[in-house]
Amino acid sequence: MQSCFTLADIAERFSLRLQGRAGVSVNSETSVNGLATLSSASRTNISFFANAAYRDQLQSTNAAAVILKANAIEDCPVACLVSDNPYLAYAKISALFDVLPAGAPGIHPTAVVDASAKIAESACIGPHCVISADAVIADNVVIGAGSYIGDACQIGANTYLHARVTIYHGVSIGESVIIHSGAVIGSDGFGFAPDFSQGGTGWCKIHQLGGVVIGNRVEIGANTCIDRGALDDTVIGDGVIIDNLVQIAHNVKIGDNTAIAACTGIAGSAEIGKNCTIAGAVGIVGHIRIADRVHITAKSLVTGSINNSGSYSSGTALSPTPAWRKSAVRFSQLDSLFQRVRALESNRTNS
Amino acid sequence: MQSCFTLADIAERFSLRLQGRAGVSVNSETSVNGLATLSSASRTNISFFANAAYRDQLQSTNAAAVILKANAIEDCPVACLVSDNPYLAYAKISALFDVLPAGAPGIHPTAVVDASAKIAESACIGPHCVISADAVIADNVVIGAGSYIGDACQIGANTYLHARVTIYHGVSIGESVIIHSGAVIGSDGFGFAPDFSQGGTGWCKIHQLGGVVIGNRVEIGANTCIDRGALDDTVIGDGVIIDNLVQIAHNVKIGDNTAIAACTGIAGSAEIGKNCTIAGAVGIVGHIRIADRVHITAKSLVTGSINNSGSYSSGTALSPTPAWRKSAVRFSQLDSLFQRVRALESNRTNS
Amino acid sequence: MQSCFTLADIAERFSLRLQGRAGVSVNSETSVNGLATLSSASRTNISFFANAAYRDQLQSTNAAAVILKANAIEDCPVACLVSDNPYLAYAKISALFDVLPAGAPGIHPTAVVDASAKIAESACIGPHCVISADAVIADNVVIGAGSYIGDACQIGANTYLHARVTIYHGVSIGESVIIHSGAVIGSDGFGFAPDFSQGGTGWCKIHQLGGVVIGNRVEIGANTCIDRGALDDTVIGDGVIIDNLVQIAHNVKIGDNTAIAACTGIAGSAEIGKNCTIAGAVGIVGHIRIADRVHITAKSLVTGSINNSGSYSSGTALSPTPAWRKSAVRFSQLDSLFQRVRALESNRTNS
Repeated sequence: MQSCFTLADIAERFSLRLQGRAGVSVNSETSVNGLATLSSASRTNISFFANAAYRDQLQSTNAAAVILKANAIEDCPVACLVSDNPYLAYAKISALFDVLPAGAPGIHPTAVVDASAKIAESACIGPHCVISADAVIADNVVIGAGSYIGDACQIGANTYLHARVTIYHGVSIGESVIIHSGAVIGSDGFGFAPDFSQGGTGWCKIHQLGGVVIGNRVEIGANTCIDRGALDDTVIGDGVIIDNLVQIAHNVKIGDNTAIAACTGIAGSAEIGKNCTIAGAVGIVGHIRIADRVHITAKSLVTGSINNSGSYSSGTALSPTPAWRKSAVRFSQLDSLFQRVRALESNRTNS
Repeated sequence: MQSCFTLADIAERFSLRLQGRAGVSVNSETSVNGLATLSSASRTNISFFANAAYRDQLQSTNAAAVILKANAIEDCPVACLVSDNPYLAYAKISALFDVLPAGAPGIHPTAVVDASAKIAESACIGPHCVISADAVIADNVVIGAGSYIGDACQIGANTYLHARVTIYHGVSIGESVIIHSGAVIGSDGFGFAPDFSQGGTGWCKIHQLGGVVIGNRVEIGANTCIDRGALDDTVIGDGVIIDNLVQIAHNVKIGDNTAIAACTGIAGSAEIGKNCTIAGAVGIVGHIRIADRVHITAKSLVTGSINNSGSYSSGTALSPTPAWRKSAVRFSQLDSLFQRVRALESNRTNS
Repeated sequence: MQSCFTLADIAERFSLRLQGRAGVSVNSETSVNGLATLSSASRTNISFFANAAYRDQLQSTNAAAVILKANAIEDCPVACLVSDNPYLAYAKISALFDVLPAGAPGIHPTAVVDASAKIAESACIGPHCVISADAVIADNVVIGAGSYIGDACQIGANTYLHARVTIYHGVSIGESVIIHSGAVIGSDGFGFAPDFSQGGTGWCKIHQLGGVVIGNRVEIGANTCIDRGALDDTVIGDGVIIDNLVQIAHNVKIGDNTAIAACTGIAGSAEIGKNCTIAGAVGIVGHIRIADRVHITAKSLVTGSINNSGSYSSGTALSPTPAWRKSAVRFSQLDSLFQRVRALESNRTNS
């Protein structure tokens, strides 16, 4: 991958306007080799200004150039790459400087590939991978070292699995998906019928006969789990982004472009709308529906359906532990307090 | 595995009564090839009716037959498989249609097996597995691709490890256990002695010398962790079912038939009784005891022993974020509010 | 590893005083082969007494010897190994009896090692490992079976990776670090720029160009994830200990000797001080700072910076579910209750 670009290159590729404030001379042939924050950028780095809190850092940056809005040009001591949306421009430019090793096409000799699997010539199957019967691996797919692809899985073009991903049998993954290491897709949903009558067998396993269908342009974080459906499939829409250590239970449906941060758990058959943002460590109980454009704040528990878009929260604020202990005790006495206040009010009315 | 059965087969294998309401002709030779929900079932599928909320779907199902209680026969437009416990019957039948690949007996040539390991001839050791010294693998065990079995582990008959499971040294696993991908059994407990005096080494590791003992008919979810004991063993009873991404710390003991949902964490030396149900994302602190038949609701924190069976909860309800913010601020002021109410009450009494 | 020691050996190696109370004869040549709790210790085990709650067990122990403070000698029926800090002495002695298999130096023939990687002769590279280009593996490092080491990683001397660890490219790990199975270090941070305007691409991935720098004497638990930085590095200080299933997001900085228990999640760019203790299942939001010597209790959510050392909590106490339901409903009505109390107070004042 090319790792040096001139400012003129960058401006042209990303439709940015290269200019400087009065007195700053801009050399469009200046060569840059990376992105950096305003404070750590060297003279061969590009930086970006997307948050007014960093204006001081903008004013003293050593970057070669800064991506910013037109209204910040006067604060910038170096070349400007002017954009209506500097943060998005930064995101797009970041792809230029990624050093993630590209997979070379071909099947590593240590991989174990079933004869019935169909693997595109342009795909890269890493060392110690296992590709099972009837799996279909499309063009330009990368399967990272040590990954396991179960029977009859389908993996769409340009999808990238990092090392040590597990895909159970019968999972369908779209195009341009990224899955991080340790993720497990298609494990059994947690379904059991109680059988505790005399002679019963305890928890009787409900074999999980559904699959998982993952759309296009999905990203799935490290050590995240997505269970297969009990009968129907678990479904992840297009453009969904899921962070690390997330649990998605059987038959959950996630609408397009919803974002789910780390450590969140979503119980069975919950349906999440489109364009939702679920913050970290949220819990969502099973068999409920969440509308489109709902935002859930960190560590909240959703115990029922949410029919209207908006932001929702649960929990309490953080306090020093001794003060918190008093509040926590009082919480348990709240119902009686309400009754006492009602008695006082009634007394006042009567007197 | 056979994948087609007649309704007569199904009825006989699972002791169900095949019949139809008046006017519905039942052909006991009808062939079925799968299970499906009432709404998605085709004419070659069986479905089940175990929740009155789906009565509408029952009345319009296209299934070949529906498993149901006798009192629902009149609502069923197709053949009925009558059971006292339709949900349990469904669970048992689900095993018939599972397409999980069975492991063929034998050791894959890419597996690395220590010469001192004892592996039953009927066991299946998948590609890229490692079986360490003195491990004992019993009849019909399947060790999925890429799994690691440490020194001197014992794995009981009919146990099934999916791909990429890690079992540290000295772990004992019972019979008919299922362990999902990414699970780690026998990792070190989080034990350290502080040594921050002058010349100290900081956190001094307490080497974890105990093991893990897992009973029979246990299921362990994907990416779940069960730590080895510090001195004695961590113990998981018979029939325990554990979901994905659960943390079980060193020296925890889980009683028989307890169920633990995803994202729950149980701290060191906690003892959980039998037949408990721990919902998702629960936290249980260390060194406490929980009685038999205790139910903990989702995302609760258990900070002390629970001596009586029953259901327990903590946390607050979900609200729109602006309203929640007000409540959260008020929570911190609860103790002073109680004092104000007491003052009002005392004033009323005195006046 | 030697597995038998005389009491005299132990006393000398760990600077303990071997003695007995009046009437207890001490044989310094007694041979011991393990550590055990006071109640389960046999006559060939050492035990320790560090918690007064176990005095009864001390008085009836069958251990060969007990590590204890001088003031407990009179309660001990067997030989004493006297220490000012018995718990620390126990921790140090535990290393003697660990049966964790040491790795034999050398590269397993099934490992796939890039020709440009530099691997010390004393290092042990296990079966089915992958060591990528330009990786540097120092003396006495053990890389457990099935682990993946990305391009240009550096792994310091005496570091031990258990089976199936994943290290992405460009990660630097210090000396004497322990990483447990399933941990993923260097996965992409969860960074995306929204691009939902017409013709936009949805969540535009911000390629994560930073690395991860891990200090010396760090321990990282099973299935824990540490993301690489967006531009700068994610940094874990010396002596930090991290339990299982912890999420550490991009650009987090953890100060030296901080301890983080299982199931905790720390969001992007949070900076945690030195010598903090973060209990289990804590959530810490992004872009905040926590001072040194802060303690956060289990399952708390930290939503802002903490500038002073001390203990902090959030959440509510556990209650029986019916009582909890009432409190939870009342929580949502708190703001109005405060207004009602204010009205009562104002009424009293006015009357």
